[in-house]
Amino acid sequence: MSNTKDSGKTYHDKPTGEALKTANEHQEPQDITLFGSWFCPFVQRVWVSAEYLGIDYKVDPYAKPQDLLEVSPKGLVPGLKLHKYNPPRALNESTVILEYLEDLAAGSTKRSLLPPSTHPYARALVRLQCDHVNRALVPAFYRYLQAQDAEAQIKAGKEFNDALYTLTELLERAERDIIGGGGAANEGEKRALGVGLGLWTEGGDLGLTDVMVAPWIYRAGNVLKHYRGFVLPPGKKFEAWVERLSNHPAFKATCSDEQMYLESYERYAYNRPNTSQVANAINSGRSLP
Amino acid sequence: MSNTKDSGKTYHDKPTGEALKTANEHQEPQDITLFGSWFCPFVQRVWVSAEYLGIDYKVDPYAKPQDLLEVSPKGLVPGLKLHKYNPPRALNESTVILEYLEDLAAGSTKRSLLPPSTHPYARALVRLQCDHVNRALVPAFYRYLQAQDAEAQIKAGKEFNDALYTLTELLERAERDIIGGGGAANEGEKRALGVGLGLWTEGGDLGLTDVMVAPWIYRAGNVLKHYRGFVLPPGKKFEAWVERLSNHPAFKATCSDEQMYLESYERYAYNRPNTSQVANAINSGRSLP
Repeated sequence: MSNTKDSGKTYHDKPTGEALKTANEHQEPQDITLFGSWFCPFVQRVWVSAEYLGIDYKVDPYAKPQDLLEVSPKGLVPGLKLHKYNPPRALNESTVILEYLEDLAAGSTKRSLLPPSTHPYARALVRLQCDHVNRALVPAFYRYLQAQDAEAQIKAGKEFNDALYTLTELLERAERDIIGGGGAANEGEKRALGVGLGLWTEGGDLGLTDVMVAPWIYRAGNVLKHYRGFVLPPGKKFEAWVERLSNHPAFKATCSDEQMYLESYERYAYNRPNTSQVANAINSGRSLP
Repeated sequence: MSNTKDSGKTYHDKPTGEALKTANEHQEPQDITLFGSWFCPFVQRVWVSAEYLGIDYKVDPYAKPQDLLEVSPKGLVPGLKLHKYNPPRALNESTVILEYLEDLAAGSTKRSLLPPSTHPYARALVRLQCDHVNRALVPAFYRYLQAQDAEAQIKAGKEFNDALYTLTELLERAERDIIGGGGAANEGEKRALGVGLGLWTEGGDLGLTDVMVAPWIYRAGNVLKHYRGFVLPPGKKFEAWVERLSNHPAFKATCSDEQMYLESYERYAYNRPNTSQVANAINSGRSLP
């Protein structure tokens, strides 16, 4: 693992780079305002989805403004404020918001992060992947980053690696069962069937699983690398997938400069008390908030 | 709490009562076989949904048959075997299976456990409820039932009560925002808007949240009552909801006699080693499997 020392740095309030540019382009009032700090991976999920699905939104990627606290008393982010209702309504929980944006897009932009509802089994395979990301991979990421002594770091690192491996098995299964499974008569049908199966398969486009996991894959490549000496699993297919995730326009549009993440995650890497509700849940062995 | 002693009883292999009757009526081969022990609440979710949505299925509500292990090597239940594929495919994870059945029904029986996709905000409120059930209420149930000393039981009992209270807040919010929120012009529209909002509102029908939580509400009323002296929260609206859940034909059709649950859950109530993967996860402070 790397030799680093807690320098006391805390998170930055403002994004930089592409994220700042995108934020600046989304300051006009819209039906939807997205609240949530730019460095929060749960927020990034929602931001990427809104970009990809082509939904109009305003973004407030800073700390917890009064405006959010009015609709979400606990200040949980990501939070959406829905201005078309009177009084305005609020939504939180990234997974719930993602489904909401998906439903909204079905009625407007016609873009989608899921296979079509006429293919329930394909959708189920994607949901299995997402379930694994949420219940195993994401908690494993934080346990690894917050682990302090060498033994705990080795154990947690192995668990995170295992979670990545299981995800690739689930991605492979979907590719095999849906695209390779004889369900498609020709290339056109294959592409139609492959909608929402994501970037794992060459030629695919962003899918729900990609959006669910990309923020942590990205932070594994910089934050975990820096603080734990972590290296993403080798293998051509895995590497190509990570490359496609990182370079997808909707994802890139929400990224700040990498140094910003290193500094914003220092408090996790040294497991400082009360770093966040997520960090506290990990320390007390509870489900993430 | 009640004065009980571990008598060493373990779970029964076969259901009784209504569940046995329903199982006997679903022994003919179908496109879908549902595997999973009759007393498992995660299995019951799927069973209730299949009944409500009117999906043809065969059920094997016993232990873990070889037939399941072939498609689900870890033997996780509930498990679906999908015979229309060659080779047959398998699905697990109750929440994923519920969405799968919902998608299937949309294309066949036209029944639904969710508000229509033309009402994304109503769907989001239901998904928020489900998220709370899965991440807070269900783990709290097991922590309470597995807690051994008095202090731990009091603490866990309070957490379970809090989780129930938060659920009622979310149910009230949906009723207020969707049905009472001026979104409906007349009674007919109210009913249409209310689809999938569930049994919380008088006149409603079964919804996704009801299905997600009913197995634990039911077991709170018998298992937690017996082993922890637990009493479901008083209040006319809550009591009427529990009454409607317990007496809903789709739910009742999957219930065995209450004594059967008491005996099958004794191993949880005394937190015997290796009671189940769920019990182990609770003991080690991990997400449920």
